[in-house]
Amino acid sequence: MKPNIPKGTRDFGPEELAKRNYLFQTISKEFLKFGFQPIETPSFENSSTLMGKYGEEGDRLIFKILNSGDFKTKELSNIVREVQLLSLTVSRIFKDVLNDLDKFEIEVGRKPNFYELERNKNELKSFIEEKYQYRVNQNISLIIGYIDSHKSIERLFLEGSISELFKDKIFEFFNKYIGITENTSERLENNEMQKLFPFIEEVYGKIIDELSEYRKRFSKNISNEISEKALRYDLTVPFARYVAQHQNEITFPFKRYQIQPVWRADRPQKGRFREFYQCDADVVGSDSLWQEVEFVQLYDAVFTELKLPVIIKLNNRKILAGIAELIGESDKLIDFTVALDKLDKIGIEKVTEEMKIKGISDDAIEKVRPLLTLQGDNFEKLEQIDALLKDSHIGKKGVEELTFVLRNLEKLGLESSELLLDITLARGLNYYTGAIFEVQAKNVEMGSVGGGGRYDDLTGIFGLKGISGVGISFGLDRIYLVLEELNLFEKVKIPKPKALFINFGEDEALYSLKAIKRLRFLGISSELFPNADKLKKQLNYANKREIEYVVMAGVEEIEKGIYTLKNMIRGDQTNCDLNDLALMLGNK
Amino acid sequence: MKPNIPKGTRDFGPEELAKRNYLFQTISKEFLKFGFQPIETPSFENSSTLMGKYGEEGDRLIFKILNSGDFKTKELSNIVREVQLLSLTVSRIFKDVLNDLDKFEIEVGRKPNFYELERNKNELKSFIEEKYQYRVNQNISLIIGYIDSHKSIERLFLEGSISELFKDKIFEFFNKYIGITENTSERLENNEMQKLFPFIEEVYGKIIDELSEYRKRFSKNISNEISEKALRYDLTVPFARYVAQHQNEITFPFKRYQIQPVWRADRPQKGRFREFYQCDADVVGSDSLWQEVEFVQLYDAVFTELKLPVIIKLNNRKILAGIAELIGESDKLIDFTVALDKLDKIGIEKVTEEMKIKGISDDAIEKVRPLLTLQGDNFEKLEQIDALLKDSHIGKKGVEELTFVLRNLEKLGLESSELLLDITLARGLNYYTGAIFEVQAKNVEMGSVGGGGRYDDLTGIFGLKGISGVGISFGLDRIYLVLEELNLFEKVKIPKPKALFINFGEDEALYSLKAIKRLRFLGISSELFPNADKLKKQLNYANKREIEYVVMAGVEEIEKGIYTLKNMIRGDQTNCDLNDLALMLGNK
Repeated sequence: MKPNIPKGTRDFGPEELAKRNYLFQTISKEFLKFGFQPIETPSFENSSTLMGKYGEEGDRLIFKILNSGDFKTKELSNIVREVQLLSLTVSRIFKDVLNDLDKFEIEVGRKPNFYELERNKNELKSFIEEKYQYRVNQNISLIIGYIDSHKSIERLFLEGSISELFKDKIFEFFNKYIGITENTSERLENNEMQKLFPFIEEVYGKIIDELSEYRKRFSKNISNEISEKALRYDLTVPFARYVAQHQNEITFPFKRYQIQPVWRADRPQKGRFREFYQCDADVVGSDSLWQEVEFVQLYDAVFTELKLPVIIKLNNRKILAGIAELIGESDKLIDFTVALDKLDKIGIEKVTEEMKIKGISDDAIEKVRPLLTLQGDNFEKLEQIDALLKDSHIGKKGVEELTFVLRNLEKLGLESSELLLDITLARGLNYYTGAIFEVQAKNVEMGSVGGGGRYDDLTGIFGLKGISGVGISFGLDRIYLVLEELNLFEKVKIPKPKALFINFGEDEALYSLKAIKRLRFLGISSELFPNADKLKKQLNYANKREIEYVVMAGVEEIEKGIYTLKNMIRGDQTNCDLNDLALMLGNK
Repeated sequence: MKPNIPKGTRDFGPEELAKRNYLFQTISKEFLKFGFQPIETPSFENSSTLMGKYGEEGDRLIFKILNSGDFKTKELSNIVREVQLLSLTVSRIFKDVLNDLDKFEIEVGRKPNFYELERNKNELKSFIEEKYQYRVNQNISLIIGYIDSHKSIERLFLEGSISELFKDKIFEFFNKYIGITENTSERLENNEMQKLFPFIEEVYGKIIDELSEYRKRFSKNISNEISEKALRYDLTVPFARYVAQHQNEITFPFKRYQIQPVWRADRPQKGRFREFYQCDADVVGSDSLWQEVEFVQLYDAVFTELKLPVIIKLNNRKILAGIAELIGESDKLIDFTVALDKLDKIGIEKVTEEMKIKGISDDAIEKVRPLLTLQGDNFEKLEQIDALLKDSHIGKKGVEELTFVLRNLEKLGLESSELLLDITLARGLNYYTGAIFEVQAKNVEMGSVGGGGRYDDLTGIFGLKGISGVGISFGLDRIYLVLEELNLFEKVKIPKPKALFINFGEDEALYSLKAIKRLRFLGISSELFPNADKLKKQLNYANKREIEYVVMAGVEEIEKGIYTLKNMIRGDQTNCDLNDLALMLGNK
């Protein structure tokens, strides 16, 4: 058995861990300075806490945990019922297919012969290529697809599992329409062939659709039956649950931060893992815009500390709502922002073209044209937006909020980050109700390294109504990749002993361990090579682990009460007593 | 919906977390000083990595993760097959029951009537109590138990789930032996009654046993079908997997430490959770006994740092093997050590009595009698053991190893811990091959707060043979409880802002935020109250969060460029400029 780990997960060695811990520590140090307090929640929550909070796609990406122990009577009998429902459905599908085949026989005057089709695939292909050149590929692949799918359905049913339940139906199906073709040499007539294509397409589609639809429901029902817990998918929902559950112990406004792993059954790819850390800071219980100001400062503080220059993009959901009012169709808002986002790359012409294709009316595009030609700094842009949204109450509110935040941030100043008003910023549209943040690293190609926003009623789903919250998140894995690319981990120290003591035998080892004990007491990491192996092997170990110093103490040193200290980089060595040894190793 | 978390899991608030982090940091600081390097492994492993490594009981306690997405054809058809097997089994059980009932009819001359039994339960009870006084309770409960179980089986089958599959059989069963009893008034004869008891017992037992046995297998098979990943159960097996997988990147001997949560589906109780942290340090790749010496020193260093006096118990698996040779039956070794462990409490007489009850021969007890009267310090005891095990090669080797460790530890000295040779120490008997450690806190009732030992071939199961390892573990949750009980967390600081700035409005808030920015730059945690609420409310917030200082800056302060600093504990207040403010808050 070759040892391995599940895809999308990672082992972290000492070096990677040191860099990650540097990130965790830098971020949490700033969190603390800003008055946030850490909490931790369990790795798994009750499924009911998580399910339905992340949309249909999110639900599917949640890792569910199997109930422990043996299945109970209820679970067991529900599984049996699900299988019976599956059986009934498959049985009905087959009955439908048989009906369709009957209809075909009546219309065409003979039954379709799929085995024959397969045997004559190449001949068929030439025939079709001559006759129906414009639709060859599609039809060929339909036929081949049908044969393949037909074979896989057949395999499923003959595998000995479902077949038992449908022996009669399968027998009927295969005998009537597929069997006893070995000695048949008749060919399909051209006109039959033509009639066959749409029919095959229809039957094929019907079987595949119905089976896959049912399989989905079956999967979901069985999963719910035998699983009541699920791994944390993000930190926000568990935080909302925490606030609702502990509301009587909490002093509001509550400022918490949380740095813990989350799990998603996403398809793994570069920078996307199935287990990864999130770093969140949120405040709940106040709608003050000073918090938005503080969060931008917090981003600035962290990325300044990490020496990573970033652009902090700002928007406000209410401005987007105002624009939606202007366009007249709020369901086109995302299409609008996606198109608008391409302004710099493809120009006004192409952007308006894309908007039209997406079904935004000429009239609407005319109305929002000023957004395509925004000029000047953030404040000048805000003025233009304000003028445009003069008739939208909510839109003007958004401009007002954003102005407050930008005005005060300008007065306070940022250390190293750039602030950018970006009305195309729409992340978490259905979630955020006020400010929206997103952070992008400068000088490097990478998605956002952070984001967040305000949500008016996060804890409502857990019964605690009217609690406004605002929060931000740091994308740890992406920040890691960026710092790695820009060589910004240089000052991170990989933990390792300062000195290795060579082992020359029991007496010498004991003498060394006395020194080691003293060094450790002084906070200096050091160790004894465990075996009295050849010196070369021990020095080799020190080199491989990149240990800076080697200490040698043989009979001679013991007699004199000294130690020989060798610098493994420079190669020089010196004799000293224990005090000097501690001084020399401690100073470096 | 009342928000809640799964049983056996915990939310950690800021205070608890601060104490836990103090433990993590203290332990990892010592790990680093001893030359151990941190690694981390994924929260879930492939099931094949974990299953079968912890015994049958362990396997059942592993949390399995459901495969994500919809079930695949193979999984689906295997579930169907499992349900069919279940159906066949239940069908067979029913057939057996029918056969038994037939046999009963032939023997007794009539069929048993269970509904009738139930209706006449009270009369039956009086009847049986008169007739069979000595066995009343047992039999009554058998009958009632049968009726109840019979009803629950019936319910299961009539629930609409399994019933569909067995309509015929169930119909036959109920019609033949139970149905049409409403109008029947015949009573059971006494002699029939007598014959009924053992029969009921037999049929009842058969149904229950077979069904529960099958249900177990069904659970396990379905679980394996739909789950390929499982949550980490301990840190040792993932470490062994890590070493085997990364053997070419690792420098041996490899000293690693790992502090991560593990998950067990154990029944939760005081101090036992379903999610808890383990802290492990191990060395693999050397069999040097200096490592045993180092691990004892490591325990001593950590518990000295935590100010917790402990007893470190030592034993050696080879000494236990020697004793087993002496007793003659190695399977009695655990019984022997368990009995011997009670020596202090119950005395020699009772201990030897217990050994006899457990089947240890008089002869064997005579041979090991010196172990019951060990006298003196660790070394004197070792001499007595050595004499006793003089004919056991492996036993003498164990004494030799333990002597080396104890001798060198005596020369090096321990800071605060007590060393105790304890030949009853047998934890992880099937696992450890040399040294065995266990740590017990003094002055407090609690199980072991740490343990470990040497294992000769841990990575063998992952294909890397002949790698000896030795390691120890810290029981974090128990250490936490002990420190809490002994008030040893006193010096742990709960993270919170040093100062709260009162919010009097936009201008004042901005003025305060400028000071806050400066304070944070200097590393002093502080925050602005987000809303310009009434002063009382803001002060109340500071009090509830136990924030030491409140800073007030209104129009007057802004004019003068000063701040009013109020100590919330003493109640006094003072005016100062920003520099002084920073000095005063930074100094405390």
